[in-house]
Amino acid sequence: MNIFIGELLGTAALILFGNGVVAGVLLKDSKAESAGWMVITTGWAFAVLIGIIVAKACGSQPAYLNPAFAIGMAILHNNWTDIPQAVAGEMLGAILGATLVFLHYLPHWQRTPDPAIKRAAFCTEPAIRRPTANFVSEVIGTFALTFVAGALFSRQVSPNGVPDGVGPYLVGVLVWGIGLSLGGTTGYAINPARDLGPRIAHALLPIPGKGSSDWGYAAIPVLGPIVGGCLAGLALLPIVG
Amino acid sequence: MNIFIGELLGTAALILFGNGVVAGVLLKDSKAESAGWMVITTGWAFAVLIGIIVAKACGSQPAYLNPAFAIGMAILHNNWTDIPQAVAGEMLGAILGATLVFLHYLPHWQRTPDPAIKRAAFCTEPAIRRPTANFVSEVIGTFALTFVAGALFSRQVSPNGVPDGVGPYLVGVLVWGIGLSLGGTTGYAINPARDLGPRIAHALLPIPGKGSSDWGYAAIPVLGPIVGGCLAGLALLPIVG
Amino acid sequence: MNIFIGELLGTAALILFGNGVVAGVLLKDSKAESAGWMVITTGWAFAVLIGIIVAKACGSQPAYLNPAFAIGMAILHNNWTDIPQAVAGEMLGAILGATLVFLHYLPHWQRTPDPAIKRAAFCTEPAIRRPTANFVSEVIGTFALTFVAGALFSRQVSPNGVPDGVGPYLVGVLVWGIGLSLGGTTGYAINPARDLGPRIAHALLPIPGKGSSDWGYAAIPVLGPIVGGCLAGLALLPIVG
Amino acid sequence: MNIFIGELLGTAALILFGNGVVAGVLLKDSKAESAGWMVITTGWAFAVLIGIIVAKACGSQPAYLNPAFAIGMAILHNNWTDIPQAVAGEMLGAILGATLVFLHYLPHWQRTPDPAIKRAAFCTEPAIRRPTANFVSEVIGTFALTFVAGALFSRQVSPNGVPDGVGPYLVGVLVWGIGLSLGGTTGYAINPARDLGPRIAHALLPIPGKGSSDWGYAAIPVLGPIVGGCLAGLALLPIVG
Repeated sequence: MNIFIGELLGTAALILFGNGVVAGVLLKDSKAESAGWMVITTGWAFAVLIGIIVAKACGSQPAYLNPAFAIGMAILHNNWTDIPQAVAGEMLGAILGATLVFLHYLPHWQRTPDPAIKRAAFCTEPAIRRPTANFVSEVIGTFALTFVAGALFSRQVSPNGVPDGVGPYLVGVLVWGIGLSLGGTTGYAINPARDLGPRIAHALLPIPGKGSSDWGYAAIPVLGPIVGGCLAGLALLPIVG
Repeated sequence: MNIFIGELLGTAALILFGNGVVAGVLLKDSKAESAGWMVITTGWAFAVLIGIIVAKACGSQPAYLNPAFAIGMAILHNNWTDIPQAVAGEMLGAILGATLVFLHYLPHWQRTPDPAIKRAAFCTEPAIRRPTANFVSEVIGTFALTFVAGALFSRQVSPNGVPDGVGPYLVGVLVWGIGLSLGGTTGYAINPARDLGPRIAHALLPIPGKGSSDWGYAAIPVLGPIVGGCLAGLALLPIVG
Repeated sequence: MNIFIGELLGTAALILFGNGVVAGVLLKDSKAESAGWMVITTGWAFAVLIGIIVAKACGSQPAYLNPAFAIGMAILHNNWTDIPQAVAGEMLGAILGATLVFLHYLPHWQRTPDPAIKRAAFCTEPAIRRPTANFVSEVIGTFALTFVAGALFSRQVSPNGVPDGVGPYLVGVLVWGIGLSLGGTTGYAINPARDLGPRIAHALLPIPGKGSSDWGYAAIPVLGPIVGGCLAGLALLPIVG
Repeated sequence: MNIFIGELLGTAALILFGNGVVAGVLLKDSKAESAGWMVITTGWAFAVLIGIIVAKACGSQPAYLNPAFAIGMAILHNNWTDIPQAVAGEMLGAILGATLVFLHYLPHWQRTPDPAIKRAAFCTEPAIRRPTANFVSEVIGTFALTFVAGALFSRQVSPNGVPDGVGPYLVGVLVWGIGLSLGGTTGYAINPARDLGPRIAHALLPIPGKGSSDWGYAAIPVLGPIVGGCLAGLALLPIVG
């Protein structure tokens, strides 16, 4: 139960801050309007830090916040006990987080004319729509996330343990790096809950002039991350397992 | 007494650096003119780090720097002893800090024609003036600040304790994230002293061509943060209390 | 063997993230297009952090990722045992990493018309082509990298040891600083594998409309870093040896 | 003797990286050209981190890198033994560092037409030339630097000690904050050696088309910082003395 609540609230915080920075940069008349890629990737980095703190405080010590990462860790530790509750919490939390972003930026939605811009504050869209390449991008990004975060806390990399506070910060910095270096192609969903949850929220919420939720792309930022997470879990097994 | 002095000087430092970066980006002919949202949010992040160091050095171990956060912590720890002195120190410190910003950027005020720009170096203004939505934004931002900062140092999140130096840095990074992700709507006052103190300074100081202090908006960045801080204190009670 | 594998995979990660951020900023229609120098240098900083984590996890405790740095450390510790395997792994890893960048950004290569821009996502080019000055720039940058990274973990600088996680982060920050402050001249190869490996990949990969691999410049970002690394190793000997 | 060498080499590194980032952003055809205030302030932050590491490695445990900070600490600890050697090393080191920047960016000087731009890569110039206000700005900035850096390592702020590596990073972050928030007025010399040493180098070096060294302003970034450092030392005495 604690895992479910922790993942739910931690993922809600992750999406409030992560989608929040996208909304801030994209929505019309926001003080952060057009602030650019550095702001978006930095905002997502600290969204991860904040999400981890919230998840741990609310009962999820592993603080996955991400079904793909959770599955990778389940493969690595050969322990699937928590996974269903974690994934359920993450999905609900992502919908809740996107709803909070909708509320936080409430007056800005109708000021923003382009429906694609409004949707971008919810879910990802590829820079160039090419399903196989987009899928590969999401696999690579999520593999990197899962492998490096899994390795960071291993005996080989951190024999004395990463100090409290520093660990979540470094996971945030890792996501900063993924965004900066790999995010240019698909917008680095690298997390099925981060993309599907807000897409569901986009479909459900009364966003003025909202347009399509782009369901045609929805499978890729779910399947790509799951494959990337699984591969990273398998790759970690002989190394830090 | 120490709490009062520590909060006064720590909040003065917070505002000198926080309002200082806004002045640097907005005032005419500053070397940081038009440097953008990344500079403003980063400057505020390190203002928090610096304010905490100053507050602790000068006698306030909790280093609240923020009446809303202080009230949230009082609810969490069911201890209101320090709060009146802390809040008094924070209010006076914020006025002092804004006065230091006025002095530091002295030749730039008359070079800057727009009174609204000059006022923005003192107190916040919403991107879209809509009282309820602005209030909700300030509640969400301050809830996040108080909840996450309160959680970070809890047994659940940091069982071995956050190392000295790292703790204040992470609180600064948290405010960095709040600015990046949630600041686009109201400019993230998230602190009654941070907004009201400099607004009083704006009204009192001989700023050339200064225009109105916008008292019509002044209640929202006071009440929103107080409500957000209280709710976060209540939310933390069953979790880390 | 472990050193070889660790350096290979760590350097592949370094180049995937380091060249990845350059590709993201330079290639047409990337979401990071034209995001600027701050994004490039920050991306390279975290590429170093990530590369070190991967190298350590995969068997290379020293995590050199860089033949010039490896040679500097060999001079400092008077121990050349690991160097041939390390350098071989780094060269192969750099080619692998550049290939991963090619795959990650696959649809973007043919959208980008200028061959020099495409090549810049692989290997460095000087801002002003002046061999001696370019060589000196690479010597200075690599000297700084090797000397400061070597000094950071010494008894003199860190008598109690840098905490796990913080060490790789600070090496990343060091490279951030080198990029920001010294990268403007030659693009801070400061690593023979980082430049030569991707240049070989550029020559071999089927990049649409790719143009020359600029072999006329290839020697400088190999020799300059080697000289800089050797000089730093010699300079460290009497100091922290 | 060690203090002299450590301060000399540490300050040379500080100036190589600090003035280096200014040169990179200002000089014509640099890859960092026009990269802006965020790049300049971040580069100076990591210049401080790197300078501290070099100074400690080369024999100066206090790693002042700054006569004004050194004097402040001498007042605080009532110990002037090291100060003359430290200040001499800092002045020579600053001249050496500026010479290294001249060499590193060698082909860029004649490409840059404006002599004031070239000089700005050596020494500071106020945004608005107003001696008293400029002096006050430098006093405030240096007071903040000395007071906060002095406080950070005190028993009150860090009873368990700041971990190795984290300390120099936080001092760098402090200078990041000073640059962002207070640098817009005078360019934050906040260090007599940082300004006077490179100004002397500017006068001596054969920079093509260099113009005046602006000696009329030279006293302010020397005297302002010394006054600020002294005041901070005095202010720290009753607090952490």
